[in-house]
Amino acid sequence: MEETMVKADKDLSARFAAIRQHTEFICRSLKTEDYVVQPCADVSPPKWHLGHTTWFFETFILKPFLPGYKVYDSQYDFVFNSYYETVGARVIRTDRGNLSRPTVEDVFAYRKYVDEHMGRFLENGDLSLDLIETVDLGLNHEQQHQELLMTDIKYILGHNPLFPSYATEYVPTGQKSTASAFHQVVAGNYQIGFEGEGFSFDNEHGRHQVWIDEFKISTSLVTNREYLEFINSGGYQNFSYWHAEGWDWVKREHVEAPLYWHLVDGKWMNYDLGGLTETIAENPVCHISFYEATAFANWKGLRLPTEAEWEVASAAFDWGSRWEWTNSAYLPYPGFKKADGAIGEYNGKFMVSQMVLRGASVATPQRHSRKTYRNFFHPHLRWQFTGIRLVVD
Amino acid sequence: MEETMVKADKDLSARFAAIRQHTEFICRSLKTEDYVVQPCADVSPPKWHLGHTTWFFETFILKPFLPGYKVYDSQYDFVFNSYYETVGARVIRTDRGNLSRPTVEDVFAYRKYVDEHMGRFLENGDLSLDLIETVDLGLNHEQQHQELLMTDIKYILGHNPLFPSYATEYVPTGQKSTASAFHQVVAGNYQIGFEGEGFSFDNEHGRHQVWIDEFKISTSLVTNREYLEFINSGGYQNFSYWHAEGWDWVKREHVEAPLYWHLVDGKWMNYDLGGLTETIAENPVCHISFYEATAFANWKGLRLPTEAEWEVASAAFDWGSRWEWTNSAYLPYPGFKKADGAIGEYNGKFMVSQMVLRGASVATPQRHSRKTYRNFFHPHLRWQFTGIRLVVD
Amino acid sequence: MEETMVKADKDLSARFAAIRQHTEFICRSLKTEDYVVQPCADVSPPKWHLGHTTWFFETFILKPFLPGYKVYDSQYDFVFNSYYETVGARVIRTDRGNLSRPTVEDVFAYRKYVDEHMGRFLENGDLSLDLIETVDLGLNHEQQHQELLMTDIKYILGHNPLFPSYATEYVPTGQKSTASAFHQVVAGNYQIGFEGEGFSFDNEHGRHQVWIDEFKISTSLVTNREYLEFINSGGYQNFSYWHAEGWDWVKREHVEAPLYWHLVDGKWMNYDLGGLTETIAENPVCHISFYEATAFANWKGLRLPTEAEWEVASAAFDWGSRWEWTNSAYLPYPGFKKADGAIGEYNGKFMVSQMVLRGASVATPQRHSRKTYRNFFHPHLRWQFTGIRLVVD
Amino acid sequence: MEETMVKADKDLSARFAAIRQHTEFICRSLKTEDYVVQPCADVSPPKWHLGHTTWFFETFILKPFLPGYKVYDSQYDFVFNSYYETVGARVIRTDRGNLSRPTVEDVFAYRKYVDEHMGRFLENGDLSLDLIETVDLGLNHEQQHQELLMTDIKYILGHNPLFPSYATEYVPTGQKSTASAFHQVVAGNYQIGFEGEGFSFDNEHGRHQVWIDEFKISTSLVTNREYLEFINSGGYQNFSYWHAEGWDWVKREHVEAPLYWHLVDGKWMNYDLGGLTETIAENPVCHISFYEATAFANWKGLRLPTEAEWEVASAAFDWGSRWEWTNSAYLPYPGFKKADGAIGEYNGKFMVSQMVLRGASVATPQRHSRKTYRNFFHPHLRWQFTGIRLVVD
Repeated sequence: MEETMVKADKDLSARFAAIRQHTEFICRSLKTEDYVVQPCADVSPPKWHLGHTTWFFETFILKPFLPGYKVYDSQYDFVFNSYYETVGARVIRTDRGNLSRPTVEDVFAYRKYVDEHMGRFLENGDLSLDLIETVDLGLNHEQQHQELLMTDIKYILGHNPLFPSYATEYVPTGQKSTASAFHQVVAGNYQIGFEGEGFSFDNEHGRHQVWIDEFKISTSLVTNREYLEFINSGGYQNFSYWHAEGWDWVKREHVEAPLYWHLVDGKWMNYDLGGLTETIAENPVCHISFYEATAFANWKGLRLPTEAEWEVASAAFDWGSRWEWTNSAYLPYPGFKKADGAIGEYNGKFMVSQMVLRGASVATPQRHSRKTYRNFFHPHLRWQFTGIRLVVD
Repeated sequence: MEETMVKADKDLSARFAAIRQHTEFICRSLKTEDYVVQPCADVSPPKWHLGHTTWFFETFILKPFLPGYKVYDSQYDFVFNSYYETVGARVIRTDRGNLSRPTVEDVFAYRKYVDEHMGRFLENGDLSLDLIETVDLGLNHEQQHQELLMTDIKYILGHNPLFPSYATEYVPTGQKSTASAFHQVVAGNYQIGFEGEGFSFDNEHGRHQVWIDEFKISTSLVTNREYLEFINSGGYQNFSYWHAEGWDWVKREHVEAPLYWHLVDGKWMNYDLGGLTETIAENPVCHISFYEATAFANWKGLRLPTEAEWEVASAAFDWGSRWEWTNSAYLPYPGFKKADGAIGEYNGKFMVSQMVLRGASVATPQRHSRKTYRNFFHPHLRWQFTGIRLVVD
Repeated sequence: MEETMVKADKDLSARFAAIRQHTEFICRSLKTEDYVVQPCADVSPPKWHLGHTTWFFETFILKPFLPGYKVYDSQYDFVFNSYYETVGARVIRTDRGNLSRPTVEDVFAYRKYVDEHMGRFLENGDLSLDLIETVDLGLNHEQQHQELLMTDIKYILGHNPLFPSYATEYVPTGQKSTASAFHQVVAGNYQIGFEGEGFSFDNEHGRHQVWIDEFKISTSLVTNREYLEFINSGGYQNFSYWHAEGWDWVKREHVEAPLYWHLVDGKWMNYDLGGLTETIAENPVCHISFYEATAFANWKGLRLPTEAEWEVASAAFDWGSRWEWTNSAYLPYPGFKKADGAIGEYNGKFMVSQMVLRGASVATPQRHSRKTYRNFFHPHLRWQFTGIRLVVD
Repeated sequence: MEETMVKADKDLSARFAAIRQHTEFICRSLKTEDYVVQPCADVSPPKWHLGHTTWFFETFILKPFLPGYKVYDSQYDFVFNSYYETVGARVIRTDRGNLSRPTVEDVFAYRKYVDEHMGRFLENGDLSLDLIETVDLGLNHEQQHQELLMTDIKYILGHNPLFPSYATEYVPTGQKSTASAFHQVVAGNYQIGFEGEGFSFDNEHGRHQVWIDEFKISTSLVTNREYLEFINSGGYQNFSYWHAEGWDWVKREHVEAPLYWHLVDGKWMNYDLGGLTETIAENPVCHISFYEATAFANWKGLRLPTEAEWEVASAAFDWGSRWEWTNSAYLPYPGFKKADGAIGEYNGKFMVSQMVLRGASVATPQRHSRKTYRNFFHPHLRWQFTGIRLVVD
């Protein structure tokens, strides 16, 4: 048993280093100033992501399990904590988007300090399976924040009137859509939810049976070209396609197109990470809300899949370029139990008022996707790389 | 065919008269002023309910189908319409809670006028099945508003510092809870959704199969006594029982107890329609939000049923005194299609961000309940007569 | 001395009766529903005015000075009090616009009860000068509420999509403007502030000297015709005429014309108390904010008077059809001291962020005007009968 | 004439260099991140101040008057402009606190570029008097922003939970108050407003006569010790000292002490630019709103001076450590005319809803004070170094 554990630790140590480095690689072209701002409540400043993911390892691994570990800065617990409820009375409220200190340099020093201690800890120690699982959770947590780093950086640069480019070598988001076809699934009882080896989140657990009626699902995503037809046919002006709440959102926010689309001299331009460029017709549409996905489906006379349908059919199509809105609300699987303690807060407390997205996106880190992964956002949000796949009954 | 229809019409005519009269009976003890106010956005002024239900019959029956019908007042279409999106540009925005005109007397005259024309129309005419269905929809629509009338009147009087009594003869809400027991349902494929004769809403249609795992459901509702234990054990102070969004709601709204509960000199008082009285321990708890229902269940280590579980088990217990929160989001049944035209706007457009309630309440009109009925509200709302039934896996 | 007092009391008693009756006369054509609503925060429901003015006499005269007086309803102190700060913890917050109870009938009964006691008290008693002054304050307070009753009723009916008429015999607001001329005032030290016999408010006290430079003031008010020229020349589209804060207000509220003006089929209509009628060109413009008054003056290349200039020149022109915005902020006169006790709260606490209006309006009660009267409102408000008089240096 | 101008230009050139350098000197200890954030709407990010003051010289001097001048970056006009109303339709709204670009380095390069061109322009050219006045306006404008830089930096660091120090060599704000005495001014006609040589703002112009009654003004400012007595005697709990609007502010914002005061373990600590330190009793109280200044004066039974009283008495006391709230609203002096063009927007458009402050503060640049200077802020603001001087009638 011990031997097995040492081997596991070696792999873990390498994986730890690789994932931690990748986070910093994502930030390679940022200016110091880009790390600091928070243009809307759903976006976090990049330096907060860098600090918060580090805080995870310090709090849940080093502090409790590395004998003699000295906390880097006792105030960081307060600054980079996201579990605000457990924090006691403080002189001043923290406010992510308005904190100039700690500086970016401070945060990178913090990362270095924690990484060195984690490196030694992972290489030397005999780790219990519980501890390995916690490290694994921390790494998957960091990968989630890698995707958020990408989407938040895009939001920060894409809402700057200078439209700065993130990276010249940047490959435009998306892939050409494949020729469209519908894959049929026959009615029956199916199993969904995670099973097997490797990491998974608590919200995927409880593999269970569901009855599914026959349906046909598109093997390709809706393209910009198709979405433009919806716009041009007055889709944003006709309430009958929309949820009541979606229609209110369209009116209140003056929504007329996907996020990052700008009509310049009669041409639809699109901020991509390389800058403001012309919208590419055959790319899958991106950065749309659940309301828009549903309105588009209604306009087509089709519908979004449920998350169970999506999972059962997922082998029949390529997925991974867009998070795909489903018509399933984010709710617990049968038998869902949240873990004890602060880590247990992970997912369950968000299981109301959000919709499930399946698949992954161009911003999702390598080896962080699986067909049972349940992503979730509020129906009006669109700063993630979201798209549409349709179903016919 | 014609004979059948005439017979149907006679019953319909009597039912029409009875339901319309019952609406006015609900208002028998109101003062003119009580008809006018709107203390919060979810509550409508009683006179609006009286006018709006009348407008339904005028708009969908009399105007299109009664030859020579003369509209009572062309401006009422604007004032009592709830399909605001189809209304054109107007000089002034209507604002339900601030309209002193039309007066209550005007609204009752409007009802009388429409009722007389409807009475003649139903007695004399040969009605198509479609038309009968529309009348039936109008009557069920009116019954929904009868329940809202009760809950809105309670809100209006219960938020007045004089705590006026609605009616001295009023029977306190609720019934003693029966002795608690758990009814077991075995795993299997079950059918849910409406079938058979009689009226039903579009959201119940599409009877379909679902797989359900084994569970045990309580045959009684949670009582005030049990809920008070939750309060006294610090349930409203401990975030770990709550959805993140529910906890924000508790903090923002300073929620400490169910709606209508007031701690007076150390004793929990409760505004019931007879006035402010002491809370009765063995009555089922009432006027709680979905957040509170969930927090209570978490505190107990149990959970709310899904709507499918509720429907499958419903024969095993008495229901009807409280609308019971389920842990199901309000989403379309497989194959759900909305009807054409304005009537088609009925239910589908609300299928996001709301939770399903099952059963019925002490405020629900007679013969307006069935086990397949899907009621729905946003998770923070509590002015309906809502309660809690628990499940063990 | 005693004799004098008895005589004073007789006049006072008659005046008391006349003023109290006039308040009810203003309401003669209201429907019960009109008494209840509160379409915006600055407007109070008419029944609140009726109750609040009555509460004044009960609280400051009858309770402390009429031996054996029995309070009409102990809860009315809470409902009709405007000195909310002195009120202790209550089970429920009062909310003027959502109180259906006490009913209008209750409020009239309350008036009757208090009036009868006041009548006997004023006729029988030997009143101290202090007490006479308090009664006088109460009557002037009631006259202020008479004007608010008129402006609030206009707001309630004028924001109803049915545009109901207040009274068919109603004389349209305003009077033809007289031929325009400018009256010159020479530079010098002048005295302003109240002096002499009769009632006055604390904010007029402290007659004092001010130095005034030479100026010329218009003997007529700006007319609808002139104001329409401002509109038609793009006055609402050009920020250079506006205070920064006024321009924000125009943009945020989409202001394009005075309150109650509606552009119907290319013609400017105006809700007056008789209904919606065509705007009369030669009437003085009405229902404009301080921002609009200033923007108009800037557009003309002229300015508003200060309150001292207005008072000094007031004998040279007819005033009284519109409250005239001055460019003076509402601040204390030299030596201003607020009276002791709750009555002392009267005016001083409002002396920040408001502008002074001088004169009176068509809605001001008879014998409630004087040239030293200092009215005041926030610069964005326009539901009073406000107008513009211009000055040249 | 030419000779005079060249000489003036030489001095001007040196003064230009000195003032521009001082702006950067203020920022000497800032981290890059400190330049970027905007924790509240009244505070601007330091880099915006640096860019905006530079934009002034580029826009009003170099572009129109330096032949062949090449604009540094055409987009900066949009980013650093504060005259937002003249800006046309843009793809994206600018939002000072969320702009990571241009970077701090970019902004300093922009300053260098403009300074070099200005330097050559001032040394070489024969400048018209108009142009010299515009440069002078630009320099005074920059000095105003120097003070804002100090107050905004204090706000940014003082609202960071780490309470970073601005500079270790920093001298604590304030000076010991001198022994208190009252200086008497006799009644009479006095002249106020700017006269003489040197720069002044348009709002000081129009030297004019005012009548002032006799009064006595304190020769010292209210101290922290005195203010603490107000706090300890329940000043923030007793509405009778407050304007109605001030009391609402106290309740809504939970105000209990001046800005930057924190009660830590029963001791009042104060964030000063050196860090969080104990409040020094004999320093003049700082960072209080007009509401607080007035409430304090009412509690003392005294009052604030008017701006005319302050100016007339100003020779009798030391001033300059705190901006002193007066009880005068910010309104135009007699004969005030705003200048033509964009520069003319300077002051007049703010002349509503603000109160005048007189004197200067520890943050005011050298040679930027005079007794006729009219500073102004909304009554609730307190991030400037504001204080209290009292008057007795």
